[in-house]
Amino acid sequence: MGGVADWESLSVEAHRAYAGKIEVLVRVPVESPRDLSLWYTPGVAGPARRILENPDESFELTWRWNTVAVVSDGSRVLGLGDVGAEAALPVMEGKALLFKLLGGVDAIPIVVRERDAGRLAYIVKSLEPSFGGVNLEDVESPKCFWLLEELEKTLRIPVWHDDQQGTALVVIAGLLNALKLVGKKLSSSKIVLFGAGASNIGTYRYLKALGASPKRIVVIDSRGVLRPSREDAAEMARSNPWKYRVALETDPVEERLEDAFGGADVLIAASRPGPGVVKKEWVRLMADNAIVFALANPTPEIWPWEAREAGARVVATGRSDLPNQINNSLGFPAVFRGALSARATRITDSMVIAAAEALAAYTEETGLSENRIVPSMLESEAYVREALAVAVRALEEGVARRRLSRSELEREIRELVERPRRVAAALSSRGLAVGHGGERV
Amino acid sequence: MGGVADWESLSVEAHRAYAGKIEVLVRVPVESPRDLSLWYTPGVAGPARRILENPDESFELTWRWNTVAVVSDGSRVLGLGDVGAEAALPVMEGKALLFKLLGGVDAIPIVVRERDAGRLAYIVKSLEPSFGGVNLEDVESPKCFWLLEELEKTLRIPVWHDDQQGTALVVIAGLLNALKLVGKKLSSSKIVLFGAGASNIGTYRYLKALGASPKRIVVIDSRGVLRPSREDAAEMARSNPWKYRVALETDPVEERLEDAFGGADVLIAASRPGPGVVKKEWVRLMADNAIVFALANPTPEIWPWEAREAGARVVATGRSDLPNQINNSLGFPAVFRGALSARATRITDSMVIAAAEALAAYTEETGLSENRIVPSMLESEAYVREALAVAVRALEEGVARRRLSRSELEREIRELVERPRRVAAALSSRGLAVGHGGERV
Repeated sequence: MGGVADWESLSVEAHRAYAGKIEVLVRVPVESPRDLSLWYTPGVAGPARRILENPDESFELTWRWNTVAVVSDGSRVLGLGDVGAEAALPVMEGKALLFKLLGGVDAIPIVVRERDAGRLAYIVKSLEPSFGGVNLEDVESPKCFWLLEELEKTLRIPVWHDDQQGTALVVIAGLLNALKLVGKKLSSSKIVLFGAGASNIGTYRYLKALGASPKRIVVIDSRGVLRPSREDAAEMARSNPWKYRVALETDPVEERLEDAFGGADVLIAASRPGPGVVKKEWVRLMADNAIVFALANPTPEIWPWEAREAGARVVATGRSDLPNQINNSLGFPAVFRGALSARATRITDSMVIAAAEALAAYTEETGLSENRIVPSMLESEAYVREALAVAVRALEEGVARRRLSRSELEREIRELVERPRRVAAALSSRGLAVGHGGERV
Repeated sequence: MGGVADWESLSVEAHRAYAGKIEVLVRVPVESPRDLSLWYTPGVAGPARRILENPDESFELTWRWNTVAVVSDGSRVLGLGDVGAEAALPVMEGKALLFKLLGGVDAIPIVVRERDAGRLAYIVKSLEPSFGGVNLEDVESPKCFWLLEELEKTLRIPVWHDDQQGTALVVIAGLLNALKLVGKKLSSSKIVLFGAGASNIGTYRYLKALGASPKRIVVIDSRGVLRPSREDAAEMARSNPWKYRVALETDPVEERLEDAFGGADVLIAASRPGPGVVKKEWVRLMADNAIVFALANPTPEIWPWEAREAGARVVATGRSDLPNQINNSLGFPAVFRGALSARATRITDSMVIAAAEALAAYTEETGLSENRIVPSMLESEAYVREALAVAVRALEEGVARRRLSRSELEREIRELVERPRRVAAALSSRGLAVGHGGERV
């Protein structure tokens, strides 16, 4: 992949020139000593006292309501693997950029030099008062499953693991639209999940919540079809109970890969870079009008043209230079925008599904086709629609601290989603858009 | 103090209207999917790989070089005492605002729900890869002394405890100028430190480094003159060895308060709100041309007019509505600006003294008088001069990762200090300066 190496070296140059993709912006007027007395001492004792009386006031009197920690231990970064905290920083900072640009969310990259799951959870819990939400990122599996569950149990702010939930949300949105195109129902479709990492475990969870039958789902990992009768099942139950639970629930009759693919309506591959990881002959075994998502980066498990030659009708990948890019950036900025605007205490599965359905509906209204089952990443209206669905669902589910009408929520969400571009335009017009004092690029 | 209560209620209103004093600004152009491929996947793997090879590259390829964590456990916030992490957040966010506005530093408020000193140190150490510096704030004494020492020992980024070092820096700058005005030398002055908390312990440290004689310094705490022969000395040695060390080094002959003040050239009071905490008759005992700093907030230990009536010639307080405001905001933004621009691994005492001397020199050049021994907080040139002195000293001391000439440093520092105001002006001209979507204020 010469192309990827080129991106990487261009990216190093760009990162060096700007030395930071985000910075802090002062958003209040400070023009006189009087202003300082309001925003700092002695005035700031007032907000401190209010929060002491009622800690939830910290969401109204500080930036906390809109602030998300993007937390990683650097144990599984992109396709690079275990690179450690420092090397994870540019990735988390990129995530923070997308949070702001696409969702109007103030996200802070927090890379942590700690690998132990329990201590990592302890650190994040200790930081809870600083943030309005936590986005876990690039934490290795199965530690990531335990960490998410543990933090969801104890924190009163939304916690999200993007590798599990973010990709799954967009997969679900794309799949709902692909099924519309081929005229099939989710509940009666046979689905193959190829790969049993964070992303497909998350997809499985939402498929079930949407009415897919576990008995019509076959999961395949690097050792073959996932079954509770497999040799390594006891070891799996111990080391990765989340995966073992999927094995128990699906318990497929299929033993061989060929059987798994036979008659399948949907293949969601999220495993390792291809090509050739998913074979053309397997796709040939699938039902008519097959749907194939091949999501490995930088190279899909099977090239789209191969999948089509083998009979697939709708094909999606993770790549921006191919149609139907399934990218978690279509999800997380809007999920947090909605959850934060509702002051949600958590993100329920129902909120995630509301986001996926809103994303699918937006795509349908703006032109659904076999080459456009999800929108592109820079369509800001998609995020507004998704975020609004999330916020409204949070209120319905009783996990919101705030009571706003749908139209109040929509107005706030739209303003916050659009603001970063307006700010960028204002700075650009004054020659201030470039970083590092304006001189380096 | 009705005035302070008024500030507090105005401040609550302002905080509620803006809901955040800082936010995240995207500082790179993102206009196309191509840009996303540079700043995020797949390109960002490039910077990640570079940092994996050399972790110091994280200071060049991310925002880390300019990013400071403002860390508090909320154990001693302003005059409010132990209010906890949430209630400390508006204060730390105010600090972050000052960091950006005055020093061009990207500071993030990090309030931590943890009181144990060892675990607090562990958390900050774990977060080191995220930040270019750590500013400890409003941590109770003596925990703050241990914490600073422990972190300075283990971290390779600058650590600062503003309550110890920040106030002390500005005290020293003001004192150097006050001594010029009265024609006295520091080395031969008798100095009374009234109060033995973080700030005066810090002042003591820098006084010594500047050549003041410990034998000419008398420290007074709530139990009287600090002496190793005092009844509580053994207990002090155990619970607060930092204070005990000062008692050992100074070991004054004076036993009574009246003796301590007798013939003193300088009084630095940093104890508890007055008036009447420092008595007029004590000031009358001081030498001719006495210098009196009464720094308690919101009310000085003695009102300036009382101190003058009792014979003091130069008087300073912590208040913005009185002449000679000794405020740590004149220090920390510039210290970090200089340390970060030099990519310093630590802040040495010599760097702090360079800052104090530069602040004093700037004041002298722009008009030194008995009512102006330090500049006001909104004179940006003061920060440039101070920061440059800090950065140059860091290079001289061999603690800088970067090799730049004085003029290169000055150009960068000036641009970074001035940028926040230029950004604010650009946004203001477009109606974007107000927070929360522009509608709440």
